[in-house]
Amino acid sequence: MVGIIMGSISDLKVMQEAADMLKEFGIGYEIDIVSAHRTPEKMVEYGKSARSRGLKVIIAGAGGAAHLPGMIASLTSLPVIGVPVKSSNSIDGWDSVLSILQMPSGVPVATVALNGARNAGILAAQIIGTSNETMGTILDRYKEELKDKVAEMSLEAQKINAQK
Amino acid sequence: MVGIIMGSISDLKVMQEAADMLKEFGIGYEIDIVSAHRTPEKMVEYGKSARSRGLKVIIAGAGGAAHLPGMIASLTSLPVIGVPVKSSNSIDGWDSVLSILQMPSGVPVATVALNGARNAGILAAQIIGTSNETMGTILDRYKEELKDKVAEMSLEAQKINAQK
Amino acid sequence: MVGIIMGSISDLKVMQEAADMLKEFGIGYEIDIVSAHRTPEKMVEYGKSARSRGLKVIIAGAGGAAHLPGMIASLTSLPVIGVPVKSSNSIDGWDSVLSILQMPSGVPVATVALNGARNAGILAAQIIGTSNETMGTILDRYKEELKDKVAEMSLEAQKINAQK
Amino acid sequence: MVGIIMGSISDLKVMQEAADMLKEFGIGYEIDIVSAHRTPEKMVEYGKSARSRGLKVIIAGAGGAAHLPGMIASLTSLPVIGVPVKSSNSIDGWDSVLSILQMPSGVPVATVALNGARNAGILAAQIIGTSNETMGTILDRYKEELKDKVAEMSLEAQKINAQK
Amino acid sequence: MVGIIMGSISDLKVMQEAADMLKEFGIGYEIDIVSAHRTPEKMVEYGKSARSRGLKVIIAGAGGAAHLPGMIASLTSLPVIGVPVKSSNSIDGWDSVLSILQMPSGVPVATVALNGARNAGILAAQIIGTSNETMGTILDRYKEELKDKVAEMSLEAQKINAQK
Amino acid sequence: MVGIIMGSISDLKVMQEAADMLKEFGIGYEIDIVSAHRTPEKMVEYGKSARSRGLKVIIAGAGGAAHLPGMIASLTSLPVIGVPVKSSNSIDGWDSVLSILQMPSGVPVATVALNGARNAGILAAQIIGTSNETMGTILDRYKEELKDKVAEMSLEAQKINAQK
Amino acid sequence: MVGIIMGSISDLKVMQEAADMLKEFGIGYEIDIVSAHRTPEKMVEYGKSARSRGLKVIIAGAGGAAHLPGMIASLTSLPVIGVPVKSSNSIDGWDSVLSILQMPSGVPVATVALNGARNAGILAAQIIGTSNETMGTILDRYKEELKDKVAEMSLEAQKINAQK
Amino acid sequence: MVGIIMGSISDLKVMQEAADMLKEFGIGYEIDIVSAHRTPEKMVEYGKSARSRGLKVIIAGAGGAAHLPGMIASLTSLPVIGVPVKSSNSIDGWDSVLSILQMPSGVPVATVALNGARNAGILAAQIIGTSNETMGTILDRYKEELKDKVAEMSLEAQKINAQK
Repeated sequence: MVGIIMGSISDLKVMQEAADMLKEFGIGYEIDIVSAHRTPEKMVEYGKSARSRGLKVIIAGAGGAAHLPGMIASLTSLPVIGVPVKSSNSIDGWDSVLSILQMPSGVPVATVALNGARNAGILAAQIIGTSNETMGTILDRYKEELKDKVAEMSLEAQKINAQK
Repeated sequence: MVGIIMGSISDLKVMQEAADMLKEFGIGYEIDIVSAHRTPEKMVEYGKSARSRGLKVIIAGAGGAAHLPGMIASLTSLPVIGVPVKSSNSIDGWDSVLSILQMPSGVPVATVALNGARNAGILAAQIIGTSNETMGTILDRYKEELKDKVAEMSLEAQKINAQK
Repeated sequence: MVGIIMGSISDLKVMQEAADMLKEFGIGYEIDIVSAHRTPEKMVEYGKSARSRGLKVIIAGAGGAAHLPGMIASLTSLPVIGVPVKSSNSIDGWDSVLSILQMPSGVPVATVALNGARNAGILAAQIIGTSNETMGTILDRYKEELKDKVAEMSLEAQKINAQK
Repeated sequence: MVGIIMGSISDLKVMQEAADMLKEFGIGYEIDIVSAHRTPEKMVEYGKSARSRGLKVIIAGAGGAAHLPGMIASLTSLPVIGVPVKSSNSIDGWDSVLSILQMPSGVPVATVALNGARNAGILAAQIIGTSNETMGTILDRYKEELKDKVAEMSLEAQKINAQK
Repeated sequence: MVGIIMGSISDLKVMQEAADMLKEFGIGYEIDIVSAHRTPEKMVEYGKSARSRGLKVIIAGAGGAAHLPGMIASLTSLPVIGVPVKSSNSIDGWDSVLSILQMPSGVPVATVALNGARNAGILAAQIIGTSNETMGTILDRYKEELKDKVAEMSLEAQKINAQK
Repeated sequence: MVGIIMGSISDLKVMQEAADMLKEFGIGYEIDIVSAHRTPEKMVEYGKSARSRGLKVIIAGAGGAAHLPGMIASLTSLPVIGVPVKSSNSIDGWDSVLSILQMPSGVPVATVALNGARNAGILAAQIIGTSNETMGTILDRYKEELKDKVAEMSLEAQKINAQK
Repeated sequence: MVGIIMGSISDLKVMQEAADMLKEFGIGYEIDIVSAHRTPEKMVEYGKSARSRGLKVIIAGAGGAAHLPGMIASLTSLPVIGVPVKSSNSIDGWDSVLSILQMPSGVPVATVALNGARNAGILAAQIIGTSNETMGTILDRYKEELKDKVAEMSLEAQKINAQK
Repeated sequence: MVGIIMGSISDLKVMQEAADMLKEFGIGYEIDIVSAHRTPEKMVEYGKSARSRGLKVIIAGAGGAAHLPGMIASLTSLPVIGVPVKSSNSIDGWDSVLSILQMPSGVPVATVALNGARNAGILAAQIIGTSNETMGTILDRYKEELKDKVAEMSLEAQKINAQK
C-alpha cells in the first residue's frame, strides 16, 4: 500500500525507519532505489504507475539537491511524503530541506523533519487511517504508548535527581 | 471534511487559498481561529474532538514560533497539514518553517512551503483521494489544467521574444 | 519554588545544570518530563496548576520544534524561562532557538542561549531575588566568584605565555 | 520599578510598546537612552546603581551588534530582559538576536522575540507578579482578554468565509 | 544553439537577460516554458532530444524548490547552466540556490548567481567559444568593454567627489 | 586541455576527484597550486596565458573567502568551473559557496556543489563534448553506468529488506 | 593618505560616508573605481603601487562575491579595511560579508559591518592616530560628540514619554 | 605595543596564534584574560588606560555573544582588532562573527575571520607598519615567504599527481 523510495542505498539507514514503522502498524510496503538524477525514466515510470499498481501513499527520501519527492509528486496525484536526508556533502541539511519543502503552487509534497523517516511512516498510516477505522484505533493506541514512555522517563528523571 | 484553522485573523489572507482550493475540488470545510498560545483549551478541545466530529484532515497555519500545527497533531491521529505563514515580525519565515517542520519522532506534521496554503488544500484533496476515486479523477484533471497553463505561457513567452 | 521540565530524558544532561545552579543557590526545585507533543494533557495540567502549587518560576527545555516552553507560557502567568536544547536531529540548534524565542505578542518566553540551562537557573534566582534580599546578596557573591575565576585564568594565561 | 533603556532614539518606536504595556498593567517605569558603545560610563553607572535605585527589572533593547542587554546584565544581579531590535543596517535581525541571546554561562539575559518589546513588558510584569498577588490577578485577566480577542476573530473569519 | 527554458512566465523578466546577451554575441537561441513539476513529460522530451536537435548548451532558470536545471541535466549530456531565480514565495532565494547548486555526484549543473541570467548567457558563449575562435575574439572584446565602463565610472566618481 | 588549480595543497584531497574523472574520460589535464592571495602574480599569469597555452576549461577550487575561481574568470574568456571547498575554518562551507557563486554581472563562474570536484570534472567533459562527438558518446555511456549502479543498489535494498 | 576604492559607481552612495568621515577628521584621501573582476590589471597596479604612492591605509568596498578587499590585501602590506556592500542582487548581504571576512591565514582584511563605510573612515583615522598624537586628540573629541548626541537623545526620549 | 585580550582561558588556544605571529615579527605584546561579562570594571580600566600605557593596537577575541571587542572599542580610540572565536556552545560561530562585526556607526572593530587570530597578529603588524619602515620591510618579506610555500606546494601537488 505504501511505496518507499530513495535516491541512493546510502539513504537506507535513515529511510528504514519508515518501513519499520509501517511494519509495526501492519501496513504493507515496498522499498526501492529510484534516483531522480541517475534513473529519470525509472522515476517517471514509478510515479505514473503508482496509483494503478495500488499504492495509496509514496514516501520519498533524498539528500542534497533533493528532487525525488517533488518530481514524484509531479507524476502522480497520490499524496507524496518527502523526507529530507542529511547526506555527507549536504550543507547541514538545509539543501535537502529547502529543495523538498519549497514546492511551487499546484504540486505539494508533505515534508517531514530532517531525517524524519519514522514520522513519514506514521503520517502514511494517518493518511490510510482517514478511511480505515482499524488504523485509527492502532494510531490511538500508539499515542498511548508515547504517553507511557514519557511516564517512565518521568520516574527515571526523578530517580536520577533524588540520588544527587 | 477538512478543518482549516490558524492562529490569527491576520493569517486568513494566506490561508484563504486552502479554502478556495477545497471549494474548487468540491470538498467541504470549516474555518476557525484557534490560537495555541491565546486559546490553549479551545485548541485541546478542537484537536480531541476532530475525528469524532467527522473531520478527515486538518490544515493548520501559523507564523513565528508556530506551535499550532504540531500541538494539534499531538491531540489527534488525523493527518495534520502545517502551513508556515510569513508574518510581520517573523525572521524571514525561518521561524515558522522550522517550528512546524522539525517535529520530534512520533508526532508528524505534513509541512508545505512558506505561505503554501494552496498546496495544503491540494494535499488534503490527495489524502481524501486515497479512498475516493472521484477525487482521484478530479485531481488528475487538475494536473491537466496545470499543463494547459504552461502551454499557454509557452506561447506567450515565444510571442514576447519574437517581438524583440 | 522552581519547576524544571523538559520534553525527553535525553534533555536531562543539559537541563541538569539548571538544577545544579538552583541547588548551589539554595532554591527548592522539582524536575519532571513533560512532553508537549506526547503528553499534551499532562502539560496543560502542569501549566494550569503551577501557580497554585506554589511555583514561582518555570524552566522549560526542549529541542527541535520546541513547543514546550511556549505552550507552558500560554497556560500560566508565571514567568517561563525557555532553554533551547541542541538535540541529535536538530538543524544546528536553529529550530530549537527560533521555536522558543519567536513567541507572538501576548505570551513571552524568557529565552536563554542554546543549551544555556545554567543561565536559566541563574535567571530564576534573579527573578526570585527581586523580592528576596538574601537571594540578592547570594547573587552578588556569585558575581564576585565569577570575577575571581577570571583573575585565576589571567595568572594562568600569563604563566603559559611566559614559558614560551 | 522597571527601567527601560535602549541604545538609540531610533529604537524608541519599537521599545515604546514595553512602556505602553507596563502603563496598562499599572507598573511604574523610567525610560532612558543608554548606549553601550557611545556612553559606556553611563551604562556602567546605570547597571551598578539599578538595584539601589529601587528597580526590580531592566528591559534593554538594541540592534546590530547589540551589547547593551548583556553588558547591563554583567553589572547588576537584577533580571535583565533583552529586546533584539531590527535596525536599518542589521542583517535581517540575526545580529541583534544572536548577540543578545548567546550570553556565556554566568550572565543570563532573558531574551524575547525580534522587536518583541510588548512581550518584554509582559515578562517584566510576570516577574513582579511572582511576589505580588494583585499583579498575578491582572495578568490572569490579561490572558482572558487575549482569549476574547480570538473569539472575536473567530466570528469575523467565519463571517468573511460565509460571504464567499 | 542555446536552449533557454524556465519554469514559469514569471521567470521571463529575469531570464530575458540571458537571451539579450546571446543576441548581443550573435548566438542563436530558443526560449520555452518547461515546468519540471507541471509538465514533466515535456521536460523529459526536451532533455532527451536536446543534443539531436542541435543544441550545444541549455540554460535553465527556476525559483523555490528549483528542480528544472538538475532534472534537465539528468536527461542530457550537454552542459546545463542553472539560474536560481528569486521568486515571490522564495525564502530569500536560498531555496532556489541550494536546490540547483547541490547536485549529487554524477550530474553537474553549472550554477550562476541568484538572478544571474546575464552571466548564464556569457557562460554559454564561453562554452561555445572553446571550439570557436571568433567567439573567443568576441568575448575578449566584451571584456574590454567592461574595462571601458569602469574607466568611465572612475571619472564620474572623481567628478562627484571634486564637487563636494 | 583542462587546467585544475586550487589555493592550497590541503584542497588536493577534494580536487583530486576532478582529475580522476578527467582521466577516466581520457581528457588531458594539468594540476597546480595557484593562490589568489599568496601568489596573485602567478594567478594573473595563469589566467592570461590559459587560452594561448591551449587550455579549453579551467577548474578552480578554493575554501573560505574563495577568490581564485572568480579572479581567474576575470583574467580569461575560457569557461571557469568553481569548486567551493569546505576547509577547516570555513563557516560550514557557506563562505566558499557564496564567494564563488555570487559573481557580478559580466564575469560568470560555473559553480558546482560544495566539495563537488567530481562534478567539475564531468562538467568539463560536457563542455569539451559540445564540439567533440566521441566525448558525447563517452558521456552517454557514463550516464548508463550511473543507471546500472542504481539497479544494483535497488537489488541490494530489496535483499536487505527481505531479510528483516 | 587614504585610498578609497570600490567595485562599481553604484557602491559610491555607501562608500561616500568613508570619505565624509575622513574629510571631517582632516585626513587626505583619493577615491577611485577599481573592479577586481572587470579591471584586474588596474587592481594589481593599484595594490602594488599603494605604499610607494604614499598611502597609509586602503578602504575597499564591494558587494556580492566581493573580492576587491581581499585581492588588494594580497598585493600590499598596508592595512586594508573591507566594507561589505549590500548590493541589489546580494543574498541579504551574506555573500559580501563572508567573501570579505573569511580571508585565509596570511592575508588579513580589517572587515567592518555591512554598509559600514563610516566606521571604515573612523578605523582609518584610528590607524593613522597610532603614530599621530593630533589625530588621537581629534578621535577623543569625536568620542565626546557621540556621548553628547546620546545625552540629547536621552532628553528627547524622556520628553516624548512625558507627553504620553 | 600590542595588547592581546580574550574572554576566557579556553580562547587561548586560538588566540595564541596572534601572539606567535607578533613574536615572529619582533613586536612586543602583553596577554590577559579580560571578560566583558564577568569583569566589566577590569575591562573599562583596560580600555581607558590602553593608550596612556603605550599600547598601539588591541587584539580582542571572544566567542558566543562576543561583546569584548566592541566594548573595548567604545573605551579607547586605539584601533581594536576583533577575533570571533568558535566556542563550544556557539551556533556554528555565527553568534561570535555577528556580535563582533556588526558594530554601530561611530565605533568600528576591525574584524578578522572566525578563529583568525594569526591574521589579527599580521593586521596589528600592518598597522604598526604604517609609521615604521622596518616593519614594512618585514611584512614584505613575510609575503615572499607565503609565495615560497605555495611554490613548494605546487611541486608537491605535481609529484602526487605524477605518481597516479
